[in-house]
Amino acid sequence: MTVTIVGIGLIGGSLALSLKDKSIATKVIGVDDNTLHKEKALLLGLVDEVMELNDSIKVSDLIVLAVPVNALTKLLPQVLDQVTNQVVIDVGSTKEGILEAVKDHPARKRFVATHPMWGTEYSGPDAAVHGAFVNKATVICNKEESDVAAVQMAEEMYRELGMHLMYMNGHDHDVHVAYISHISHITSFALANTVLEKEREENTIFELASGGFESTVRLAKSNPVTWASVFMQNRENVLDVLNEHISQLRKFKACLEKENYEYLEELMVNANKIKRILK
Amino acid sequence: MTVTIVGIGLIGGSLALSLKDKSIATKVIGVDDNTLHKEKALLLGLVDEVMELNDSIKVSDLIVLAVPVNALTKLLPQVLDQVTNQVVIDVGSTKEGILEAVKDHPARKRFVATHPMWGTEYSGPDAAVHGAFVNKATVICNKEESDVAAVQMAEEMYRELGMHLMYMNGHDHDVHVAYISHISHITSFALANTVLEKEREENTIFELASGGFESTVRLAKSNPVTWASVFMQNRENVLDVLNEHISQLRKFKACLEKENYEYLEELMVNANKIKRILK
Repeated sequence: MTVTIVGIGLIGGSLALSLKDKSIATKVIGVDDNTLHKEKALLLGLVDEVMELNDSIKVSDLIVLAVPVNALTKLLPQVLDQVTNQVVIDVGSTKEGILEAVKDHPARKRFVATHPMWGTEYSGPDAAVHGAFVNKATVICNKEESDVAAVQMAEEMYRELGMHLMYMNGHDHDVHVAYISHISHITSFALANTVLEKEREENTIFELASGGFESTVRLAKSNPVTWASVFMQNRENVLDVLNEHISQLRKFKACLEKENYEYLEELMVNANKIKRILK
Repeated sequence: MTVTIVGIGLIGGSLALSLKDKSIATKVIGVDDNTLHKEKALLLGLVDEVMELNDSIKVSDLIVLAVPVNALTKLLPQVLDQVTNQVVIDVGSTKEGILEAVKDHPARKRFVATHPMWGTEYSGPDAAVHGAFVNKATVICNKEESDVAAVQMAEEMYRELGMHLMYMNGHDHDVHVAYISHISHITSFALANTVLEKEREENTIFELASGGFESTVRLAKSNPVTWASVFMQNRENVLDVLNEHISQLRKFKACLEKENYEYLEELMVNANKIKRILK
């Protein structure tokens, strides 16, 4: 089949590579606002061709929208306006807003809301890698609002990529990702700023940085436009989690202030329960 | 030379392996309060022999103290009481308290305060790995308070392990590690607690967890006894950084509350500067 990917960055570009590597797509067309990204996508062999959006929709079986989630709420209705028999999926990190934006669209059933749970801290076409997505989960939201055949096409594609599927409604999805993805990004960004604030005085610290630091701070390299858009779309859930996280940090702070080392240790013994989940 | 390692856990055990792998030690003696750890250390081949501390000091050229930093302030003076010509080093994560604890000890000059900047989130003898420490930094503190020959023995050992050396005083060391290590552990522990708090209601989140989550939360698996002891010893610096970090998180919170997305993006653009340091 012919697949159009709108937004040839980390996710769109990696998906393009995987679709070709696995012979899921016979042709991948790239669409992007950014001329430089289009040139790079061709140069790096991510896509076979670049086109304007409206032209590419006409010749595609599947259209994948891989743009920041804010742009998505405007772009998706425009794409659905032009769709006849094509399937449209998005790969955005938030779902409730986008589902709301098209819930009454006449072509709603041609759209499948999906979220493949894979990413890195890098961005743009240069960040695209082969072999992404394998063994990760894809969430499909509000499946019942899409045509059965459209859902099947999306499911088949993700399974062929080596992913397993999960189903939930957009609201639950957005709550979950606030906990397992969005808050991690905020803590990393804030941790980088904490250290950079200090670096004005102290340069040595970076020579010392070891694996633990790198691991907790690496997400701070992520794309600000992408993530501002995610936090904006998932504002209430992210605020909930952020409030909880700040209150958890305050517990550590109170323990240190009061020299309550028994409770400090207890907090960490509790945190160790994460071993149940992360091997 | 014969080396005694007191505390055969992650650091002590990994050091034991490397000292033998690199033929730096002809014999490694293990000392540990925990009988199970002693048995495991022998079983895993981390040490050649286990002994009581006082016996091992007599037959060793080098004594490495790899116990939690709280225990260290009591243990180090006791070891120095028995030292004649041996060299004693510690590998603890904090330095000011330990340096203070022995500054007037008659055998102070036989002690070299060191901190090899390597670790993982695992603990105990099972966590010991071959090839640790390579290409990492070791900090040597208050070098001028030690015998030249004792410092040379420590330097030579760390260089043969493939490490590069840095020198600073204990106070500066403790400030730096609060930023590049201790705060990362606190944020990870707190993040795990944030998510575990929620898990009572929601189990699905863990099926969704992707690389970003794992990366920011993995340090939450670290040993509570080790880290309570580190935070206790470095209480004031850790509190400073924790306060700064909470205030950085509050900036993100305020942006979301006020829907100030311009400033939100600016905060992340600033955090991206961490790319200068983390490639």
